Amino acid sequence: MTDAYAFLERPEGTREAIMKATYHALCEHGYAELTIQRISDHFEKSKSLLYHHYDSKDELLLDFLDFMLSEFEEGVPGPETGDADDRLEAIFDRMLAEDLPAERHDLIAAMTELRAQAANDERYRRHFTRHDRFFEDHIADVIADGIESGVFREVDPGRVAAFLLSVFHGAMTQRVTAETDRVAAVRAELDSYVEATL
Amino acid sequence: MTDAYAFLERPEGTREAIMKATYHALCEHGYAELTIQRISDHFEKSKSLLYHHYDSKDELLLDFLDFMLSEFEEGVPGPETGDADDRLEAIFDRMLAEDLPAERHDLIAAMTELRAQAANDERYRRHFTRHDRFFEDHIADVIADGIESGVFREVDPGRVAAFLLSVFHGAMTQRVTAETDRVAAVRAELDSYVEATL
Repeated sequence: MTDAYAFLERPEGTREAIMKATYHALCEHGYAELTIQRISDHFEKSKSLLYHHYDSKDELLLDFLDFMLSEFEEGVPGPETGDADDRLEAIFDRMLAEDLPAERHDLIAAMTELRAQAANDERYRRHFTRHDRFFEDHIADVIADGIESGVFREVDPGRVAAFLLSVFHGAMTQRVTAETDRVAAVRAELDSYVEATL
Repeated sequence: MTDAYAFLERPEGTREAIMKATYHALCEHGYAELTIQRISDHFEKSKSLLYHHYDSKDELLLDFLDFMLSEFEEGVPGPETGDADDRLEAIFDRMLAEDLPAERHDLIAAMTELRAQAANDERYRRHFTRHDRFFEDHIADVIADGIESGVFREVDPGRVAAFLLSVFHGAMTQRVTAETDRVAAVRAELDSYVEATL
């Protein structure tokens, strides 16, 4: 879970090159204004390749979402990276970062638009169901590790994970859709919650 | 904050009749598929009135959002309705209702789409800034009342309110954009949080 995605630095093969172009076009234009033409403007290879692989913008974006989820899955720090409390802290630092670099802001804004598609498009809903399940399972694993090693109290890992995911999701959406950024307040209260319950 | 909006039962004047038509068209079609024509299909008065008042779908929807916020503002239960802990509980019951009637589901889905517009449209962003501020202030008032009356501990009302708003917002968005509804788990953990910190 880092900003330094390998596929942006050194895209391998056609699919990664397409994913890189999609990433940049999505950050630049957002979902509503995105077109395959605008993605092809960021594409370094033959534009006909892009049209050859995807019939529509949504088909391409759904593939992009799957690709990004795989990147998240591969990039998640495992138990070897530290104690459960440090790993949980790292997730908080990532999800509720006080300073948001412009490109990450734009990516979160675009993801907010893509998630809204799921309100009326079951293809997007299927994706975000997998997306939420992955992040929830990952957080629950960290909590369970912490209980096992005696760092956390005997809580219900799945329940805590569902709660934390709502906090992250709500705070990230709000910060790109309203002018007042409450992330610092949310983070401070989240720390109180962790201290009192975990 | 009830589902029984007076303007849906007995719309008074042209604006409320337009708002009623917009409400039903938005619940039926969602944002992306909404057109002024589809709103006019739900409108009981002369359709030319609708086109006379609004130049575009977004102009109408921004007016609808303002109208709905006023409805929320008027419908919020005051201190006369109970102790702070009961009032907070009522907010939880409303925001994280386990059973979601179909029309309320559709309204939340449409609001999720409208909020996503704020990612790239500052008119929507201005609205949701006011929207968030109103709900945050309302929750903070309830917390502050509870501290004053000795029901809650000496917490920071604004910080708690920002945190709770993220929880509500995240959980409501997730339930209309993913297949797995985690609201029961979120609510259970929220109760743990309240018990441990408030």
